Amino acid sequence: MIPFTVTILGSSSALPTSRRFPTSQVVTLNNQPYLIDCGEGTQIQLRKYKARIGKLNQIFISHLHGDHIFGLPGLLSTMSLLGRKTDLHIYAHSPLQEILDCHTAFFRSEMDFRVVFHPLNFKRPQVIFENKKIKVESFPLKHRVPCCGFRFSEQPKLPHLRKDKLEEFDIPLKERVKIKEGSDFTLPDGRIIPHKELTLPAGKPRSYAFCTDTIYHEPAIDSIQGADLLYHEATFANDMVDWAHKTYHSTAGEAATMAQKAAAKKLILGHFSARYYDIEPIVNDARSIFPETYAAEDGATFEIL
Amino acid sequence: MIPFTVTILGSSSALPTSRRFPTSQVVTLNNQPYLIDCGEGTQIQLRKYKARIGKLNQIFISHLHGDHIFGLPGLLSTMSLLGRKTDLHIYAHSPLQEILDCHTAFFRSEMDFRVVFHPLNFKRPQVIFENKKIKVESFPLKHRVPCCGFRFSEQPKLPHLRKDKLEEFDIPLKERVKIKEGSDFTLPDGRIIPHKELTLPAGKPRSYAFCTDTIYHEPAIDSIQGADLLYHEATFANDMVDWAHKTYHSTAGEAATMAQKAAAKKLILGHFSARYYDIEPIVNDARSIFPETYAAEDGATFEIL
Repeated sequence: MIPFTVTILGSSSALPTSRRFPTSQVVTLNNQPYLIDCGEGTQIQLRKYKARIGKLNQIFISHLHGDHIFGLPGLLSTMSLLGRKTDLHIYAHSPLQEILDCHTAFFRSEMDFRVVFHPLNFKRPQVIFENKKIKVESFPLKHRVPCCGFRFSEQPKLPHLRKDKLEEFDIPLKERVKIKEGSDFTLPDGRIIPHKELTLPAGKPRSYAFCTDTIYHEPAIDSIQGADLLYHEATFANDMVDWAHKTYHSTAGEAATMAQKAAAKKLILGHFSARYYDIEPIVNDARSIFPETYAAEDGATFEIL
Repeated sequence: MIPFTVTILGSSSALPTSRRFPTSQVVTLNNQPYLIDCGEGTQIQLRKYKARIGKLNQIFISHLHGDHIFGLPGLLSTMSLLGRKTDLHIYAHSPLQEILDCHTAFFRSEMDFRVVFHPLNFKRPQVIFENKKIKVESFPLKHRVPCCGFRFSEQPKLPHLRKDKLEEFDIPLKERVKIKEGSDFTLPDGRIIPHKELTLPAGKPRSYAFCTDTIYHEPAIDSIQGADLLYHEATFANDMVDWAHKTYHSTAGEAATMAQKAAAKKLILGHFSARYYDIEPIVNDARSIFPETYAAEDGATFEIL
């Protein structure tokens, strides 16, 4: 199976700690990295956890709170120092462009590549990026400022040709792509071998959904339905539900409830408040509802299976 | 002796590495911290090395390259989240105010304290801050953009009263301050006891000088003369002198020469280029000229003696 992973670069909430950097993650499909959020220190974490900065072409920013964007100027500067020439695509709320322009106005002479800005839609889900391998969708969350979650889905794959049938019917090369794409095969004597007999279904496309920062928000369930891996913020344990709601964050129980209702396969919690040195209470709160719950730790890599 | 130290928070040059953050240091005199530069990740390093963010009231910024300032937005944001109300004084090249204004315009609602901006003088040395304990001077360096070094000096202390003489002459409390300030003491019988007989000289005021980023620049020697501890950038080893000059940086040998000519007591090298995994060649280049040379490491604390 083609490797499909997410590496946590930062799992703190607004106040980083000595053990957790602010939010940032690298999703990697078949060695192509995609960056989600860029809190302060992201470039340091990218280097520490051996992500390939030069291969990053897309950065997806959930919302414009400092702990999700303060690493951008440094990362762009480093990309420039490393000789980047290719476009960098940033998907974010429009005002980020103004904030970045302020920096580049001052540091412009140092940047040899173009930043291509893609404003996000905070009203409805949208496909924001796709190529032959991956599709990235944004969907609205509910926070104190406009915020989107993201879903990274493998593109559906063509079925596999059955090797035994290829040999049995001596199927020439030039027919094989058509069969993969759905055609039947006609033997020299006129007999038609149905497509289904010649192929095995491709694996179900895998997907990873990222939900932060947000209050409990059921409208997002459609967009995260059936995700193989779901990351959902759990800034607080259940006993702080009132404060969570006041600050438009989620409790662990609420994150777990989202995972359960969306029939996700596995849940990672993150964006932990700095008040928790030990996040076991948070994980336990979630596991009582959704057993397949794990905690994000800086540097941890999770497979999307 | 009152503790007077400098803690290195970051010792990389423009490209941070997994072992070195961008430039930042905390000078602490008698438990009062002062921040020099604020590269990305400074707030994380402050927390990791247990500096008291809440007690920081002055930040001195040498120049406006990203690796010296990209940590400011995050630090200011964190200070606000921690409930700061007191003024924060930033000493830097004027355009920083505009860059910060851009951030605060967007994040303004979150800041409950005032940032008081003090533009630096890049033409001549200047006292930029002082109180009863410490004096901070800036002095021009020579880099690709306007840049200042800083010297932190203890204020001269009053001499100590000799305890044996206090007892011998039964000197009342109300006379003691005057004697410390230089007065002689008149006994009840009219005899005058000279000031010098009653006091011991105070220790020589200690000082720390910080020089980065800069090409070799002898005019700075006056300002760093006799420093007990000198930090001087040594981005490159001696064999890269041409590139050092082209980029307005210094070699280790040049840093050591500055230390020697300024009769500093001890030299710390820092701002190492990312090309050096092992900085021993840099330290050796310097030690051949100035033996009391040490390398900055993130987290290291040096006493200023």
